[in-house]
Amino acid sequence: MRSSIGSPEFADSFMIETLNEFGLAVRYVRAEGNTLYHVAEDGTEVGVFDAAGGFGSLMFGHHHPQIVAHAKWLLDQQTPVHTQLAGYTFALNLAAELNTVVRRELETEDRFFAHFGNTGAEAVEIAVKHAELERGMRIAGLRDEIAGHVEQARRAVARGAALSEAAAAFAHGGGFEDLVAEVTRRNAVTGQRPPLLLALEGGFHGKLIGSVQLTYNEAFRAPFKALAAQTRFIPRDRPELIAKVVEEERATLWDVVVRDGVVEVAERDFPVFTAFVVEPIMGERGIVPLSARLARALREACDTIGVPLVADEIQCGMGRSGTFLAGTQIGLRPDYIVLAKALGGGIAKLGVVLINEHRYQKEFEMMHTSTFGRDGFSSLVAVKVVQMLEAEDGKAYQLAAERGAKARAMMEAIKADYPDVVKDVRGKGLMLGFEIHKQSGSASPEIREATEHEALSYIIGGHLLRKHRVRIFSTASSDETLRFEPSIYLSDEEIAQVDVAFRDVCQILQDQDASRFA
Amino acid sequence: MRSSIGSPEFADSFMIETLNEFGLAVRYVRAEGNTLYHVAEDGTEVGVFDAAGGFGSLMFGHHHPQIVAHAKWLLDQQTPVHTQLAGYTFALNLAAELNTVVRRELETEDRFFAHFGNTGAEAVEIAVKHAELERGMRIAGLRDEIAGHVEQARRAVARGAALSEAAAAFAHGGGFEDLVAEVTRRNAVTGQRPPLLLALEGGFHGKLIGSVQLTYNEAFRAPFKALAAQTRFIPRDRPELIAKVVEEERATLWDVVVRDGVVEVAERDFPVFTAFVVEPIMGERGIVPLSARLARALREACDTIGVPLVADEIQCGMGRSGTFLAGTQIGLRPDYIVLAKALGGGIAKLGVVLINEHRYQKEFEMMHTSTFGRDGFSSLVAVKVVQMLEAEDGKAYQLAAERGAKARAMMEAIKADYPDVVKDVRGKGLMLGFEIHKQSGSASPEIREATEHEALSYIIGGHLLRKHRVRIFSTASSDETLRFEPSIYLSDEEIAQVDVAFRDVCQILQDQDASRFA
Repeated sequence: MRSSIGSPEFADSFMIETLNEFGLAVRYVRAEGNTLYHVAEDGTEVGVFDAAGGFGSLMFGHHHPQIVAHAKWLLDQQTPVHTQLAGYTFALNLAAELNTVVRRELETEDRFFAHFGNTGAEAVEIAVKHAELERGMRIAGLRDEIAGHVEQARRAVARGAALSEAAAAFAHGGGFEDLVAEVTRRNAVTGQRPPLLLALEGGFHGKLIGSVQLTYNEAFRAPFKALAAQTRFIPRDRPELIAKVVEEERATLWDVVVRDGVVEVAERDFPVFTAFVVEPIMGERGIVPLSARLARALREACDTIGVPLVADEIQCGMGRSGTFLAGTQIGLRPDYIVLAKALGGGIAKLGVVLINEHRYQKEFEMMHTSTFGRDGFSSLVAVKVVQMLEAEDGKAYQLAAERGAKARAMMEAIKADYPDVVKDVRGKGLMLGFEIHKQSGSASPEIREATEHEALSYIIGGHLLRKHRVRIFSTASSDETLRFEPSIYLSDEEIAQVDVAFRDVCQILQDQDASRFA
Repeated sequence: MRSSIGSPEFADSFMIETLNEFGLAVRYVRAEGNTLYHVAEDGTEVGVFDAAGGFGSLMFGHHHPQIVAHAKWLLDQQTPVHTQLAGYTFALNLAAELNTVVRRELETEDRFFAHFGNTGAEAVEIAVKHAELERGMRIAGLRDEIAGHVEQARRAVARGAALSEAAAAFAHGGGFEDLVAEVTRRNAVTGQRPPLLLALEGGFHGKLIGSVQLTYNEAFRAPFKALAAQTRFIPRDRPELIAKVVEEERATLWDVVVRDGVVEVAERDFPVFTAFVVEPIMGERGIVPLSARLARALREACDTIGVPLVADEIQCGMGRSGTFLAGTQIGLRPDYIVLAKALGGGIAKLGVVLINEHRYQKEFEMMHTSTFGRDGFSSLVAVKVVQMLEAEDGKAYQLAAERGAKARAMMEAIKADYPDVVKDVRGKGLMLGFEIHKQSGSASPEIREATEHEALSYIIGGHLLRKHRVRIFSTASSDETLRFEPSIYLSDEEIAQVDVAFRDVCQILQDQDASRFA
């Protein structure tokens, strides 16, 4: 007996109503490989090719036999799931496996300490929390230094040193202790300043209270802005603006120094920024790979500012791009790496942050914990996933690259045939974006209106699902870009099926004839 | 072949070092019922009674055969796990099951709309985000009202209405448009004010960027304060202080009204607070049940302030207290209910927020989503858990109450025998706290020092583990309280084992003889 799916009486009614408008609300009852099945009115199973692929979670497809067998084996073996505060957990095994892969790709001997959450968004927040702990230590270090300088200056004053003109003015004409009081007062004000995060325009890093602030899309972020520290967003094609933003946000801690027997005030930069978080291939922005030039600029900027560079590989990592880390292909040198989605093998939930040993604050281990984190089940499913990726000399990566190239060639050919409809084909490996020109000028009022309301992708998605049995959606922040993220077992037949389906859509858009949408 | 656990080379090295000091770092290789097994040097399995119980996640123990069988069945059936944006997911089934139980316990016909995350902390953040959306709508409503009043007043002025003396002063002696400008300016300043949350001193609601701000313990919260909106904490025994805090934080939006042909300014309360979040039984604070009096006061306060009352039932819910919701026993009437931990059956990860239909903002469904959320695997494992709780007329609840009462009687008897050592026995059902007097005055320097460093519970925990094969920890924010949260299958033999173990510890503490700690 198979479970049947309930009605939206107690959840998701608005979402289902919205999806139903486009024929997109479906009860899927079985999932295998790249196929999701629903049941037709006559009771037969109808298979749908799943190009959405769990939004990047299904590198090995739905219910891969090896992953399922491993999960069942873990349960049969009564492998401990929850052993909080035992110290030794199976998460250690995963940390070791990930280090082997990541150190090879980054060509470094540095270790990466792993910290464990349960989702990508949680892992982003763990990364930000750790970075904030680092920032707090930078601030504390500066304050200690300044306190030491004040003490030195006090001794110098006792020996007869005088205040410089500028220092005396700073002290409102008072003496050394007035100067110290003013320095202390100003530094306290600066210390109250909330931190800022840095990310790219169009970036997506989750929807929890902290992580949603890193997510550019206003529809997701705006209502929750007041809840947490804000982000300055940088356009990905203008890295030179990072320096401008740093300048705009500059804040000062005042220091006291003795130079040639004279007491001076000096400005020290207050650590305003917590971290810079980027996706090597921007997912929700419309599958946009970052350039090697940007990767270099980001590394330089982070070194200058002194903040960790956090690579959010949640969607693009785990081999989807053709390498374990998508950042590897652009020479990105991150301090932290965030993984999730496909690491769970399509069954388990986990998120991992890998932190370079040179930045790692070990006290964080006792500060941030999670009941579900470090659990044996998800850790060992993830170990299996990493082993499957690495098996046979990384055949999975090769498959992602080769299958991706074939799918991309199919899309490029459509673009060549429909240059007025298809704007761009982008991505790497099996993370592809098929971008359609904005249809604001279409002769079809229905198409024009849908374009205006950013709903055309839903109409296209509904058509592809009903007529072509292809499940595909746009990325969250680029309605014109269809996201193609099937598993590495993508077959030639499935590519051909998508070829026919996409060409049909392009023909309809070219003919500006919405009546043909199923 | 069983998986072996790795070394702390790439994760948790500091945690393991800390736990190792007390002999608490253990490699558990198998888990069944209330027992965790590690392997002794001679290769034999050693069973340990697990009173920590996954910090409340193991209502049915480790690897309950029915839950394991169900999980395997779901995998064998290829039940879809990830079907984002399909609308109809198995999460709907869980929402329906939970409504049946919650509506019965709260004796209400109101529906509760379910929203899905992957952990308790995520669910708390979802609740806060939804509450913040509500706050935003209250603010928008007020602003609309004020804009309408300004328009009315403008028309009245056009017809000859004058400004009152107070209004003229407010406008710095200017006319009506100056008044409007000043109102607009002041309201903009007020609008910049970050929101505040309300919670109880000692409360614990997670460790993500937003949720950690609701967690009272400074060791977890302080380094991350600058990252998100802050909480005002209320002592649980002084609910009258809520009104004081509300008064202290009062902020004003200025309104313009026409009264008897005169234009006046009027103050309107700005919605400063987002939500009031409470645990019906405070877990990390040391297993402290809230009183029925406090439950009434919280309801009244939230009605007065206009914020949702959020019951965090993550640890105390799902039957552990003897009812599905621990709040039921104190007549708590929450607007939102947050569930997690035991809902996952010890295998799956999920968090659920149930929101009363009268407060539910359906647009939230499209704003907050999660790749791993609403997944088929965790939803259907949780359905199974709810069905197991409800089976045989709620036998699981009865077992929690009956087994808990027996364990509690055992602890009370120890308290009677060691009144100078045992301070209190608290809790409900199988959520019990065994509190020891602070040992600051012990004749043993080792015990005194451990007490000072809040490490005595680790020494006791190490002793209980090695000598008595009992795994137990203190709560996170009360080092003196041992947390007893085994499954409902707690046997008389296990109670007897803990009896012997606790008495041994009490005798050592009474004799002030640390040398006997194993």
